[in-house]
Amino acid sequence: MENFTAFNPTKLHFGREVIDQLGEVTLEFGKRVLLLYGKGSIKKSGIYDKVIKQLNSIDADIIEYSGIKSNPLVTDVSEAAQIGKLNNIDVIIAVGGGSVIDSAKITALAIANNIDPWAIMKYKVKPKSTIPLIAVLTLAATGTEMNGAAVLQNPETDEKIGYVSSLNYPKHSFLDPEFTFSVPKDYTAYGVVDLIAHALEAYFGEGKASLSDRFVEVIIKEAMEFGPMLLKDLKNYEYRANIMWAATTALNGMTNYGRKNGDWGVHDIGHNISYLYDTAHGATLSIAYPAWLKLQKDRIPERITKLGNQLFGTNSAEETILNLEKFFKSINCPVRLSDINIGNDKKAEIINQMLKNKINGMVHQFSDEDRKAIVDLMM
Amino acid sequence: MENFTAFNPTKLHFGREVIDQLGEVTLEFGKRVLLLYGKGSIKKSGIYDKVIKQLNSIDADIIEYSGIKSNPLVTDVSEAAQIGKLNNIDVIIAVGGGSVIDSAKITALAIANNIDPWAIMKYKVKPKSTIPLIAVLTLAATGTEMNGAAVLQNPETDEKIGYVSSLNYPKHSFLDPEFTFSVPKDYTAYGVVDLIAHALEAYFGEGKASLSDRFVEVIIKEAMEFGPMLLKDLKNYEYRANIMWAATTALNGMTNYGRKNGDWGVHDIGHNISYLYDTAHGATLSIAYPAWLKLQKDRIPERITKLGNQLFGTNSAEETILNLEKFFKSINCPVRLSDINIGNDKKAEIINQMLKNKINGMVHQFSDEDRKAIVDLMM
Repeated sequence: MENFTAFNPTKLHFGREVIDQLGEVTLEFGKRVLLLYGKGSIKKSGIYDKVIKQLNSIDADIIEYSGIKSNPLVTDVSEAAQIGKLNNIDVIIAVGGGSVIDSAKITALAIANNIDPWAIMKYKVKPKSTIPLIAVLTLAATGTEMNGAAVLQNPETDEKIGYVSSLNYPKHSFLDPEFTFSVPKDYTAYGVVDLIAHALEAYFGEGKASLSDRFVEVIIKEAMEFGPMLLKDLKNYEYRANIMWAATTALNGMTNYGRKNGDWGVHDIGHNISYLYDTAHGATLSIAYPAWLKLQKDRIPERITKLGNQLFGTNSAEETILNLEKFFKSINCPVRLSDINIGNDKKAEIINQMLKNKINGMVHQFSDEDRKAIVDLMM
Repeated sequence: MENFTAFNPTKLHFGREVIDQLGEVTLEFGKRVLLLYGKGSIKKSGIYDKVIKQLNSIDADIIEYSGIKSNPLVTDVSEAAQIGKLNNIDVIIAVGGGSVIDSAKITALAIANNIDPWAIMKYKVKPKSTIPLIAVLTLAATGTEMNGAAVLQNPETDEKIGYVSSLNYPKHSFLDPEFTFSVPKDYTAYGVVDLIAHALEAYFGEGKASLSDRFVEVIIKEAMEFGPMLLKDLKNYEYRANIMWAATTALNGMTNYGRKNGDWGVHDIGHNISYLYDTAHGATLSIAYPAWLKLQKDRIPERITKLGNQLFGTNSAEETILNLEKFFKSINCPVRLSDINIGNDKKAEIINQMLKNKINGMVHQFSDEDRKAIVDLMM
């Protein structure tokens, strides 16, 4: 086992009507609130009204920034940070899924340190402090509600990249499974894929971590048991709750303790596909993971076999990959680029993007040949 | 799933030579240190010297209180609190196992609030603040290094009881598996039993929490895989590390999220046996758990069967209990009071203690008949 530090400063409120504590919790940090959200689905679902009611109950000054895209742009973060600075805000409340909360994390850093968001993302400057962030989650998927990671894309540099900092943890996160009831079937399935992919990125990391491996395995089992049930019954509280909590635990640290690091090569592939075609993050992962496993199957056969043994009771790397693909298909997620209408005519463009950005894993590093092979395997 | 708050403020440093950060971490809180430890085994093992070296490196003023017993007494806590108050300490460093760290938690509350430790333990007064606590763990068992629980006994009232508060979490905990190398075989085994028992107390709690159930199951699997290997190879770093981390996770919150609460009836039984005969905590649990399960087997057969199915691949409550007993025996832990030379002549005394203190679980409540039956089942 590798040395590690187990620490997670986020206070996560989970369950029915936890939003009722939002006002009181916000007041810990102040009354000048920058409220960040997406394209307005929270208004249709009524979540917006619940948040505003809480903020009105403490006489908060609310400054809104909305329109964050599902593949979030650094330009939105720059604008939100400008507005936050001008209004001298005390706290950011991000209401949405990973894109909104990730944007809020970098907005908070940009405000507190008065620096360019993309310089932060590229690790060119090291932020020293941040603005308190409260997350209200409306999509079970990325785990951002209880970790220090954020992903943004930048059209100027053709990149979609992740940034990790201990400053990024939300101070509080509110997770009411009912807030995810209106997530449509496809995005619900993508969330299931995303959480499985997060657990797998840890599993294929570096370092022997027996208990963390077991946590990975059971988090994926939970997703594979309740994901399909949820897709048949989108307003089932228990199923929503089980998937929501599984998504948080898949990336809140516990799958990684005792490892040097996770791999994250598949996410790098996925981010580049999303960047090119605005593909939903989860959909890129159900395509990229089988391809990645095929590339690795003769390099790390025991590891892939062990995974399949735990998840499917199988005894070879091939069967692991086959069953994982089968599962993704069973929840109507794409497993090839052709499934999302990206044909061979795009192959050169994709390869070019992969080579240009030197996509890579932290542990299982790619050669340029690998980068090309991966694209072939995804077609 | 029940509503819950997931929050654990302890920063836990795990691995080889993490103690090298103790000085720097201590300085966050101040230089006036109350150093708490047990009967001196840390001097033999060299851990004491390493702690002192760290404290000297920051020119700390060290006030020592040693001699904490393995079944810790509230009288020691009262004395330690007096000394801490007189010396106006900034921080407590507890070096030891559960007894020392639990004593330190209540000492910290007693100092900060200037109140009687037993009044705290009995929930008669509500402490408002505490003194920062740093734990250096030398025994993998209780999980106290990353939770808010503490257990003390009081000879004046014939009680050994637990107290839980969010103020009780250590600010930092240092877990170097090598610090447990000198723990003898029997206490190493008792630690394995203790961590299994903690996971089970959650499992037999109230509320449907699918993922937390899975965490319980794999934590116990980890203990059952590496416990026996460790007992054959007491200085094996990996085995010590796996058991140490399993013990932390068994009681740091994650087995309980989504439940109303754990049961803790078996611990109440165990504490009363420990109180009467100064029996090691883990040894009381390997005796009490099979007895408790036998009492419950016709009341919650599905739950006990499910556990056995996950752990042993069996299909009845009876087989679950049989296999659990078998496991405890395989690591040389007692499963009957007669195994620790407590014979039928003590039966009346034990029943009297159980009735007098109205031992109980939070979920599976005992009648007086149950209290007597449990003693019969343990004989």
